Amino acid sequence: MADVTEQTKPEAQAQAPAEPSKSALKKAEKQAKMAAEKAAKAAKNASLPVGQGKKSETDIVGITIPKAENFSAWYQEVVLKAQMVEYYTEISGFFVLRPMTMHIWSTIRKWFSGHIEELGVEEASFPMFLSSKSLEKEKDHVEGFAPELAWVTKAGDKDLEVPVAIRPTSEAVMYPYYAKWIRSHRDLPLRLNQWNSVVRWEAKQTTPFLRTREFLWQEGHTAHLTKELAGKEVLEILELYAGVYEQLLAVPVVRGRKTENEKFAGCDYTTTVEGYIPSNGRGIQGATSHCLGQNFSKMFDITVEDPANKGQKIHVWQNSWGLSTRVIGVMVMIHGDDKGLVLPPRVAKTQVVLIPVGINKSTTPEARKAHEEKMQGFRAALRKVDVRSEVDWREGYTPAWKFNDWELKGTPLRLEFGPKDAEKEVVSFARRDTGEKGTIPIAELDTKVPELLETIQNDMYTKAEKSFREHRLQITKWEEVMPALDAKNVLLIPFCGDGKCEDRMKELTTRVDDQPDVPESQKPPTMGMKSLCIPFEQPEGIVAGETECVNPECQRKAQFWTMFGRSY
Amino acid sequence: MADVTEQTKPEAQAQAPAEPSKSALKKAEKQAKMAAEKAAKAAKNASLPVGQGKKSETDIVGITIPKAENFSAWYQEVVLKAQMVEYYTEISGFFVLRPMTMHIWSTIRKWFSGHIEELGVEEASFPMFLSSKSLEKEKDHVEGFAPELAWVTKAGDKDLEVPVAIRPTSEAVMYPYYAKWIRSHRDLPLRLNQWNSVVRWEAKQTTPFLRTREFLWQEGHTAHLTKELAGKEVLEILELYAGVYEQLLAVPVVRGRKTENEKFAGCDYTTTVEGYIPSNGRGIQGATSHCLGQNFSKMFDITVEDPANKGQKIHVWQNSWGLSTRVIGVMVMIHGDDKGLVLPPRVAKTQVVLIPVGINKSTTPEARKAHEEKMQGFRAALRKVDVRSEVDWREGYTPAWKFNDWELKGTPLRLEFGPKDAEKEVVSFARRDTGEKGTIPIAELDTKVPELLETIQNDMYTKAEKSFREHRLQITKWEEVMPALDAKNVLLIPFCGDGKCEDRMKELTTRVDDQPDVPESQKPPTMGMKSLCIPFEQPEGIVAGETECVNPECQRKAQFWTMFGRSY
Repeated sequence: MADVTEQTKPEAQAQAPAEPSKSALKKAEKQAKMAAEKAAKAAKNASLPVGQGKKSETDIVGITIPKAENFSAWYQEVVLKAQMVEYYTEISGFFVLRPMTMHIWSTIRKWFSGHIEELGVEEASFPMFLSSKSLEKEKDHVEGFAPELAWVTKAGDKDLEVPVAIRPTSEAVMYPYYAKWIRSHRDLPLRLNQWNSVVRWEAKQTTPFLRTREFLWQEGHTAHLTKELAGKEVLEILELYAGVYEQLLAVPVVRGRKTENEKFAGCDYTTTVEGYIPSNGRGIQGATSHCLGQNFSKMFDITVEDPANKGQKIHVWQNSWGLSTRVIGVMVMIHGDDKGLVLPPRVAKTQVVLIPVGINKSTTPEARKAHEEKMQGFRAALRKVDVRSEVDWREGYTPAWKFNDWELKGTPLRLEFGPKDAEKEVVSFARRDTGEKGTIPIAELDTKVPELLETIQNDMYTKAEKSFREHRLQITKWEEVMPALDAKNVLLIPFCGDGKCEDRMKELTTRVDDQPDVPESQKPPTMGMKSLCIPFEQPEGIVAGETECVNPECQRKAQFWTMFGRSY
Repeated sequence: MADVTEQTKPEAQAQAPAEPSKSALKKAEKQAKMAAEKAAKAAKNASLPVGQGKKSETDIVGITIPKAENFSAWYQEVVLKAQMVEYYTEISGFFVLRPMTMHIWSTIRKWFSGHIEELGVEEASFPMFLSSKSLEKEKDHVEGFAPELAWVTKAGDKDLEVPVAIRPTSEAVMYPYYAKWIRSHRDLPLRLNQWNSVVRWEAKQTTPFLRTREFLWQEGHTAHLTKELAGKEVLEILELYAGVYEQLLAVPVVRGRKTENEKFAGCDYTTTVEGYIPSNGRGIQGATSHCLGQNFSKMFDITVEDPANKGQKIHVWQNSWGLSTRVIGVMVMIHGDDKGLVLPPRVAKTQVVLIPVGINKSTTPEARKAHEEKMQGFRAALRKVDVRSEVDWREGYTPAWKFNDWELKGTPLRLEFGPKDAEKEVVSFARRDTGEKGTIPIAELDTKVPELLETIQNDMYTKAEKSFREHRLQITKWEEVMPALDAKNVLLIPFCGDGKCEDRMKELTTRVDDQPDVPESQKPPTMGMKSLCIPFEQPEGIVAGETECVNPECQRKAQFWTMFGRSY
C-alpha cells in the first residue's frame, strides 16, 4: 500500500515537461508549457502537508483541468497524478513507468506472448547495439532513423575505435543472423520475437507513452518461403494487435492497409490498426504489421534453394511487426474523464477497492475489528475468483477523500461497506465508468463482482466503439471535408491512392495560423489531414473507373475508400 | 521445427571469440584463442553440405572437445552447437540469446516474478540512461563501474550537450525518485523490481553468460523503515535465488555472507548463493542480495519522519538484489557432458523428443501413416499433462543421427517408437542424464513420463549436490590448502575476517607461472584463492578466542568458517 499515500506529499507531482530540443516547433512548446505550468500549479494545490489533519472531500485531490478544455494538459495531469509515469528530469524525453503502468504492460505481454507462442513464434534476445557496418547494408531503411540514432562513442575514458548506435529497431541487428541460420527451406519459417526497449532520440516535443526517446515494445521478425505464407502471418498478427486493443484495453480499432505514403520504409506493404481520440477527433496509429517482401532478404542476402526448382536460389519473404507502450496512452486518452483515469477491468492492477465507511470515534474496538475481519473476508472471497482487490485501511482520510483518490487512479469498481450495509448483508458499489451505484448481497459477491467487471469492460468498449463509429463519416464532396474535420471526425473518402494527391490534400486542409499566440485549444486546429489507412472493410459506393477522387484538383479515379483525418 | 535443421548448414557454427581488448590478460587470450580455433575446426567438421545423402551415426555431429580435457573450449563448443547463443561478430563481447536460452530465462522470470509479487514487490521500468549529475551523487559506488560505462555523446549528427551513460546498474537512476516518492513512513516499504539489460563494457575476455558486455537481469530495489525489516527481506530474496538454482536449474548452492573484501561497494553487507564447478574445482558467485543500510539513503536524501519520535528524521534502510543470465552458464557447466548440453526438465523448452524408428523404404504408406498418427497421439497425450514434446519427423537423417542431435541439445528424455515397440504396445526411452534405457507401456505414458522427468530433475540435483558436498573440505592446516585446491576442492577454513589477511592468502596461494606458453589445461593452475562466502550453516569446531586463523602469517583468532576457493 506504499503507493496510495502519495497525496500526503507536500511537493507538486506534476512537472514541466522535459525541455524540448531546439528544433522542436516553438508554438507547440509554448502551449505545452503553459498547460504544464497550470497542471503543476494545480497539482501543488492538490497536496497537503503531512499532519495537516483529516483530509475531507473538499480538499482538491483530483484532476483540475477539464478534458474538454485543454486535452493535452488534462492528459499530462492524469498520467502523472494517477501515478502511471514520472518525468525523468535528469534527461529530457524519458519517463519512469510506475507499477500501475507495468501491470498493464505485463498483462498485454502475457496475452500476446501466449498467442504468438501458439503460432510457433519463439523468443530471442539480440544485443542493443548496431555497428555502422550493418547500418550501411540497409541504407534506405536506416535513412529515416539516422537523425534519431544515439551513438556510443566512449567506454570508460577511452574512445571506441568504431562508434556503435543503440537500436531504434532491430532489422540491421538481426538479419545478418537470419542469413547465417537460414540455409535450407527446412529452416523456414524462422519466427523470432523479442521484448525490449529501443531508443529514438526524437527532436520533437515528447509526450508520455505516445512519443518518448526510449520505449518498451515487442518486435517480431519472421522469414517465410513464400509470399502467401508471409501474407497470412501479417494478418494473423494484426488480428492479435486488434485483440490487445479491443479485448484488453476496450479500445475499438479499424483494421486496414497503409497508403504508399504512410507505409514503413523499405517494406512491401504495412497493415495497421487505427484508433480514434474523440476529444480532439484525431486518428492515432495503434500498431503495425509489415510485409517486408524480399527487400531485406536481398540486402542481407537471405536465400534458400527453391524446393521446387533444384539449383535455383530464392530470397525469403519477411515480415516485421511491433506493438509498443503507446497502446497505454491511447487507452488513457479514450477512457479517462474529468475525475482522472478510467481503467478497463482486465488490465487494472486493482480491479476493486473496498472502502470501510461509517467507522468513527464512537465505534467500539470490537465492532471495528469485526468490521475489518468481514472486509478481509470479502477480499479473500474475491481473490478466490481471481478478482484483484485492495482494502483501503488508511487512517486520517475521510471515505469521500478515498473515493476521489481511487477514482483518480481509475479503479473500475468501488465497494463500500459500513454498519448499515452490514445490517442488510450487502455491500454498496459504485462503477468508475458510469458512476452507477447499487448494492450486492454479501453472499453473491463472488459471482456478482466478476459479472459486474465484465459488464464494465464491455460497456467501456461499446461506448468507445459507438463514438468511433459515429465519427467516421463517409464523405464524397470536398466542401464537406473541412467542416467534418473541425467537427472532430475522421473521414472515409474515395481516394485515388496517389502519394502526391495525398500530400496535396494535406496542404489543402492545413489552416494558416494567424493567431500564433493564442493557445491551440482556443482556436480551430491548423493541422492538415493525412491518410490513416485503407480499411479492409470497404463500404459500397465506389464504381471502378467512375467514382472521382475526392481531391478537387485530382483527375484520377478513386480506387478505394480511405480513412483520412488529423492524427498523432 | 525450423531450428532443428541447423546441421544441414555447410558453414562452421563455432566462431572465434570476440576480439579481446588490449588490456586483457595476454595469456588468457592466447589460450582461449587456441581453444576456440580447435572448437571452430571441430564444428566445421561436424557439418555436412546440403544434399550429401543420409546422415549416419558415424558423421561427427557432436561435441569434439572432452569436458575433462579443455573445459573452457568444451563450454564454448557446447553453448554454440546446442544453439544457446551466437557470437555477435559485429561488436565484440556481445551475444545473441537464442530461443532455447530465452525459454530458460522466461521460466526463471515467471517463477521469480510470481514469488516476489506474493511478497508485495511491484514492477517498474526506469530509463536506461544515467546523467553525469546523478553519478556524482554516489561517487564511491560508481567508482567501480566508471571504467566500464558506455557513454552516449551524439544523437544523429549532433553532439549532446551533456553525455549520458548507459546504466551498469540502476541505483543512481532510481534513488532520486525514491527520495521524491517516500515522504512518510506510510510510503514504506517501497519495493520495486525491473527486468532489463545493463551494459558493462568489460575490458577482460568475455565468456557467454558468465561475462558479457550486455546482460539480462532483474534488479530489485527496496526501502524499509527499519534495519530489521530490510534484513528480513534480504534473506527472503536470497532464498528465492537459491530456489532458482536448486529447484529450477538442479544446481546446489551454499548460502552465506560475503566478507568485507568481497561485498558490494557501498553496502552494509552482501548475502550470496555460491555454486561450484566440479570440472575445474572453482567456486562461482550465483546471485547476491545486498543490504545497503542507510548509505544510499544518506547520499540521495531519502528520509521519513520517525513515527516513534515526532519531528525526528530517519534515513530509510535499503536493499538491492539481482540475478542475471549468468545462472544459465553455471547450469551448462555443471550438467553438460561430452555429448553436449544436459538440461534439467523443468527449464527445457523441449522436455521429450519422440523419434520414429524402424520406418524405411519397405514400409508401406499406410503403415507409415498409422505410425505417424500414433506418435502424434503420444504428443497430444503428453501435452495434456503439460509435458513439452516434439516429434522429429525430419527426413534424410538416421535415427542415430537424430539421437546425437537431441543429446547435443540436452533434451532430458528421448522416446523411440518403431514397429517392434508398437507390437508390444510400449515406447522405448533413454534418459539424457544417465543414458539409462527402458520401456514404458503406451497406456501409461501420461503418468510415467511426468514421473520420469521429475526423477531426472531430482537425480541431476542429487548428483551435483553430492559432488559439491564431497569437494567442500574442512581444512585447518595451512599445508593442506594448496593440495586441496589442486585436487579441485573449495575449502572451509577458520578465518579471522580481516581484509588484508584475505589478500595475503590469495598471494600465498598464487602459483608463479614459469611456463607461460603451455596451455592452462596442461599445467597446475596459477590462480590464488579468494573467499566465496561465510556460510550461514557453520560447522562446529571454532572456539572463540582460541581457534587460530588458518593463514600461517596471521596472529588473529578465527571468527568463522569461511569458504575459500579458486573462483570465476
